[in-house]
Amino acid sequence: MQATEKTMEKIVALCKNRGFVFAGSEIYGGLSNAWDYGPLGVEFKNNVKAAWRKKFVQESPYNVGLDSAILMNPEVWVASGHVGGFSDPLMDCRDCKTRHRADKLIEDFTGESADGWSNDKMMEFIREHHIKCPNCGSENFTDIRQFNLMFKTFQGVTEGTKNEIYLRPETAQGIFVNFANVQRTTRRKIPFGIAQIGKSFRNEITPGNFLFRLREFEQMELEFFCKPDTDLDWFHFWKDFCEKWLHDLGLTKENLRLRDHDKEELSFYSKATTDIEYLFPFGWGELWGIADRTNYDLSRHQEHSGKSLEFFDPETKEHYVPYVIEPSLGADRVALAFLCDAYDEETLEGGDTRVVLRLHPALAPYKAAVLPLSKKLNDRAQEVYSVLAKRFAVDYDDAGSIGKRYRRQDEIGTPFCITIDFDSETDGCVTVRDRDTMKQERIAIDKLTGYLESKTDF
Amino acid sequence: MQATEKTMEKIVALCKNRGFVFAGSEIYGGLSNAWDYGPLGVEFKNNVKAAWRKKFVQESPYNVGLDSAILMNPEVWVASGHVGGFSDPLMDCRDCKTRHRADKLIEDFTGESADGWSNDKMMEFIREHHIKCPNCGSENFTDIRQFNLMFKTFQGVTEGTKNEIYLRPETAQGIFVNFANVQRTTRRKIPFGIAQIGKSFRNEITPGNFLFRLREFEQMELEFFCKPDTDLDWFHFWKDFCEKWLHDLGLTKENLRLRDHDKEELSFYSKATTDIEYLFPFGWGELWGIADRTNYDLSRHQEHSGKSLEFFDPETKEHYVPYVIEPSLGADRVALAFLCDAYDEETLEGGDTRVVLRLHPALAPYKAAVLPLSKKLNDRAQEVYSVLAKRFAVDYDDAGSIGKRYRRQDEIGTPFCITIDFDSETDGCVTVRDRDTMKQERIAIDKLTGYLESKTDF
Repeated sequence: MQATEKTMEKIVALCKNRGFVFAGSEIYGGLSNAWDYGPLGVEFKNNVKAAWRKKFVQESPYNVGLDSAILMNPEVWVASGHVGGFSDPLMDCRDCKTRHRADKLIEDFTGESADGWSNDKMMEFIREHHIKCPNCGSENFTDIRQFNLMFKTFQGVTEGTKNEIYLRPETAQGIFVNFANVQRTTRRKIPFGIAQIGKSFRNEITPGNFLFRLREFEQMELEFFCKPDTDLDWFHFWKDFCEKWLHDLGLTKENLRLRDHDKEELSFYSKATTDIEYLFPFGWGELWGIADRTNYDLSRHQEHSGKSLEFFDPETKEHYVPYVIEPSLGADRVALAFLCDAYDEETLEGGDTRVVLRLHPALAPYKAAVLPLSKKLNDRAQEVYSVLAKRFAVDYDDAGSIGKRYRRQDEIGTPFCITIDFDSETDGCVTVRDRDTMKQERIAIDKLTGYLESKTDF
Repeated sequence: MQATEKTMEKIVALCKNRGFVFAGSEIYGGLSNAWDYGPLGVEFKNNVKAAWRKKFVQESPYNVGLDSAILMNPEVWVASGHVGGFSDPLMDCRDCKTRHRADKLIEDFTGESADGWSNDKMMEFIREHHIKCPNCGSENFTDIRQFNLMFKTFQGVTEGTKNEIYLRPETAQGIFVNFANVQRTTRRKIPFGIAQIGKSFRNEITPGNFLFRLREFEQMELEFFCKPDTDLDWFHFWKDFCEKWLHDLGLTKENLRLRDHDKEELSFYSKATTDIEYLFPFGWGELWGIADRTNYDLSRHQEHSGKSLEFFDPETKEHYVPYVIEPSLGADRVALAFLCDAYDEETLEGGDTRVVLRLHPALAPYKAAVLPLSKKLNDRAQEVYSVLAKRFAVDYDDAGSIGKRYRRQDEIGTPFCITIDFDSETDGCVTVRDRDTMKQERIAIDKLTGYLESKTDF
């Protein structure tokens, strides 16, 4: 194994040791694949979400935001098809009592997707190819049963079907049911979009790969409403827009690929779907799903709720149910992609190795670290820190040699280290060291805010 | 009723009509007291959260952030006492079958809190004073039973006690169980704090008063860890800090009061608790609870998990379980307070009335609105909009008379209206109108960003 090979082990270890991500409820032995974002992780993930909001809402002439509740009227999930169809095909091993996803057993066997296969087809394939229980090697499986992925809970004071509600499995439906409210109150005309960030929950049987597949996860979804027949143009527009967002935030182009769903894989209502995939250390994984969902969602809700979700076009005098383009991204998943992509072990002149997290400055937890060269300079350094902290997340570190402090900041991705030295008193300047090039330059203290602003902007 | 009287009806109506807050799942008849934040609401609430994070984390020399999962190991809630004791005393009316909180019936009757009363004491009081069912007037109540407020769900593929988990009823425990992880990775010394924003869930029998009491709500909590015997000093420090935060964001001082818990009301482990209360249109309500929780929480988790949660003080060489000061604030609730406080109906010269939301500029959904005086000026106005939108949330409105557009912006709290007129082409300036004073001044376009930055800073 090369010193410079990226592995999930190294990335997970860095996250745990430096306070990016801890195992959830760790002192109680954890809870399945639940994770908590530590002090650096919350800054980093907030930056990822802010970068998305900035481009998809704040600067967008098309889109507005929304923040709908996790708990919704259960009829929403009947209309959306989640009560009926949002399930995994599960089978038990009769010998060792472990439970498995039939489609995953087939995928592991063939290396190809079994999406869209019927239970019968999967059962037949498993028997025919003598696929074995990954736990005990037996072929003694039960039949396949569909298991709904929605977490169920009970609202009100009695348990019973009457009070049964779900934790939302996606944020999208919160947007669809608010389509008319948003359109009316913002007086927007088609085309426009509604964007939202929020938690969703899926009772996955096999969560895993660190932040990649979580039962509790955060989504960043846009539902873009457009006129029928313009949908494919907008589909391409948003696909390009999403790809550019990833490129602009520095994801290595070679680690990204677009995968169009072919007819077999497409949902029956979708005209086109493309996944943007990222090459994680454990292989290619879906990052962003961009789908032309036609007018399926709004039509379903219109039918089921009895409320009109048509748009009246004041120019053409037409009434129609808008078509929808949905770019759907997992915040935790894309955060993991940024972490993996940024992780680097660099061999320095002299043979030493440094770990450096080459995050885009806009995503870095701290924009700068203030480092007094001597404890005698603490007062002056604290002044600089206080001024910068009004505008940025900034670290302060006065412990250990300056070299060690640089390494600590490199490892957490801090783009700029600001050293206060004895000359700072007289010349009003500080030394700013660049994380990536390790080059240093002398900057006037009163120019620091502007300097960091221009360097960390997105 | 005076024209200028603030009522919840007016505030709720403004929220619904202008896209601050919609009823959750509205097209399906809603879901109890669930609410969705619309395009303006999400900007506004994000600003409230950002203002809290800025003062409690970013600028604080003491505190770091955290974002722990909603789903936790159920042992957490055994240790915290929530499985055993987080319940409401409920009783049914045998005649009309409605269910009631016994303590609320007593409070409505006496006007005073029944916190800490035993079931027997409450039952006796209700019988003795012939308190009646608020629905049907009967006195035919069942006995009081304790009903746990935690939402229960099931993780994994089978329902059963083994897989029973809870939606967290507070964010605080996510901080306590991560105390050692955060202390270790940040190398912080006592005193320091951990701050987090996140959703919590309580199965309240009587949610209500718009955003005041929700079953799904967002908390902003700080747990500040300090040395025993310094706790009361820090308690006063954070109480003052919280009060200042509210004042600085413009909440009317006369609508705020501090209420210290007396000995009877104090939790058995708390040395001191103060509620900051706000005078809502429906009466005084708790806004911020600031509690000295001693070392109760960490001691419970240490005992229950078997993991040491002691801090080793390198200076005094002492080991101790830190004491905790907890300022706990509801994001939705304080957002409601800001909305209520900001709502104003102003009688203008000439007798007209304008509705104006006098939000602190840092909290206003839009920092500015760009208004071309004529559609012929759209190109120039769009340029100004694009520049400002890179830095701020900005609205664009070219529909209707300029007077109407001003009113629309006043009503949603936009602090500055920027009018592009025919002179703008030649003098490179725009007219900036102040929401509160309605005064106008002429500002150079290239000075606009700096102008808005200084005026909307917090």
